Amino acid sequence: MKKFLNRPENFVLESVSGFAESHADFVAMNPAPLYLRRRSPKRKGVAVISGGGSGHEPLDIGYVGTGMLDAACPGAVFTAPTPGQVVAAAESVARADGVVLIVKNYVGDLKSFELARDMLDLPVSWVLVNDDVAGVGPDHPAGRRGIAGTVIVEKIVGAAAERGMSLTDCKRVGDKANQATATMSVALTSCSVPGAAATFEIGAHEMEMGVGLHGEPGRTRIPTMSANEIASALVEQISEDLQFRQGGAVLLFTNGLGGTPLGELYLLHAAARAELMRRGVEVKRSLVGNYATSLESAGASLSVCTLDDELLGLWDAPVRTVALRW
Amino acid sequence: MKKFLNRPENFVLESVSGFAESHADFVAMNPAPLYLRRRSPKRKGVAVISGGGSGHEPLDIGYVGTGMLDAACPGAVFTAPTPGQVVAAAESVARADGVVLIVKNYVGDLKSFELARDMLDLPVSWVLVNDDVAGVGPDHPAGRRGIAGTVIVEKIVGAAAERGMSLTDCKRVGDKANQATATMSVALTSCSVPGAAATFEIGAHEMEMGVGLHGEPGRTRIPTMSANEIASALVEQISEDLQFRQGGAVLLFTNGLGGTPLGELYLLHAAARAELMRRGVEVKRSLVGNYATSLESAGASLSVCTLDDELLGLWDAPVRTVALRW
Repeated sequence: MKKFLNRPENFVLESVSGFAESHADFVAMNPAPLYLRRRSPKRKGVAVISGGGSGHEPLDIGYVGTGMLDAACPGAVFTAPTPGQVVAAAESVARADGVVLIVKNYVGDLKSFELARDMLDLPVSWVLVNDDVAGVGPDHPAGRRGIAGTVIVEKIVGAAAERGMSLTDCKRVGDKANQATATMSVALTSCSVPGAAATFEIGAHEMEMGVGLHGEPGRTRIPTMSANEIASALVEQISEDLQFRQGGAVLLFTNGLGGTPLGELYLLHAAARAELMRRGVEVKRSLVGNYATSLESAGASLSVCTLDDELLGLWDAPVRTVALRW
Repeated sequence: MKKFLNRPENFVLESVSGFAESHADFVAMNPAPLYLRRRSPKRKGVAVISGGGSGHEPLDIGYVGTGMLDAACPGAVFTAPTPGQVVAAAESVARADGVVLIVKNYVGDLKSFELARDMLDLPVSWVLVNDDVAGVGPDHPAGRRGIAGTVIVEKIVGAAAERGMSLTDCKRVGDKANQATATMSVALTSCSVPGAAATFEIGAHEMEMGVGLHGEPGRTRIPTMSANEIASALVEQISEDLQFRQGGAVLLFTNGLGGTPLGELYLLHAAARAELMRRGVEVKRSLVGNYATSLESAGASLSVCTLDDELLGLWDAPVRTVALRW
């Protein structure tokens, strides 16, 4: 796979440095251990930290800023950050009010964040993200994976912390957002880690349902379908998990995996929105774009978050980060 | 090429409808003739309109909003809008102060906008964008193409109009921004129009220098190079055009063609920035992302805009659109 790349082993540091230089009004970078934090850390209140493998940009570094993350720790490509990164990031931004760690449900991420938690001399709380309803098999012993729904959870917890909510409440709304969110994804092509071959191959007339964010094979491989049929299939899977109420209001988040044009994402979003309306569900908020990617994969995920007044208010709260602003 | 698609002939309308539904707080859509306008049109002042083939999203529809475009006319994929679209868009948003049409330098776009200009009973001015320094051949009789620099020109003219500058001054700063901007691009892969085969093929170890925004072949095909070497080659070409002053300040815009991961764009941006610094040029502002795309092409362009105080002030002025906000 052709890439804009110098030496594969320098990819993450060069890329994150470019990000930090370009957005010096939002973030400051610590090179070793590597983390990004808000340029002007909060004086008080709960700090919110996330992190994970690189290759999902703008997740998580693009969400550092007012109303979302206080710091993010980018690991190697598709590899969890080290405990040392998490500890250093937390110590640079956390105050007496403590820190919430937002962790995607993968074995490596859990291990790193658990070790970091034990090393921190601070009140630490924890929100696990496991929004993927693809029903993964025994190769994922941690269970349901955390994928695009992470963006929603980070936004909700960040807004809560910005409002001055307690550590307990920040965790409560984070857990609520995670439970209210279900994601199902589809890939048309795989991707390749810099310096490596493609993770897997998908045939010219096939697509992979239920892929994760790491170019990993999904649940089933089926012949390509129309966008309307894909939207129906993804919404059906999400619906089995969330058990929509008639007349309920949701956030619909159509996320690109990195290699799909924006025009196709909007077309898929319109199809998913129509499918939800047929099921009596009101799409009250929309988010469309490449927000949690898998390098250059062509593909998309649909996330649905059922909104109560508290979640809607936190979603609508002002946010000022590189990748999400309103 | 696998795509999220229903019927190819419905692609643009379904996609633009999805965009308009998702961003109803920013834009309103007129389905036939197709255009998008600000949800709340300006009461007075110069209106700014652009448009062009679809497949370049977020260009131009993502730039409709406060401080940038008043309306945008999306044509069929890689095809100029009709004069009727431009006329209808202009009549819906233009006031007595007149309208600036921002036109990319392609034969089809010129013809449509010229016809529209003749049909409009309004003061009409014109900014031509031709930032591409690839030095295209006889297959582009209009001369230098308008590519990613369009985003810069639209931002500058939009800010001028929002400030209440006259039609004459809006045109003046638009022409100045265009003349101050040079873009050079490189593609690692081509793309395919919905329902059609790939526009051209690039070998597994080759890249195409000087491509445009329509998946069209470029100026030279060369073996792949490192990101640092690519940045140097692109900056060299730009430098021959702009003739940098020592100590001059520029905006550096690293644009993805649609299929390149954000992490690679930031890495390329850092390399280009370093190359400009070696030439004694200060990168005072940065923009990095997929802002003017070519469907799913993997590739990127570098645009450099030399900034004087007026252009810097207009660039920094507040903007509130779907794709650009500060």
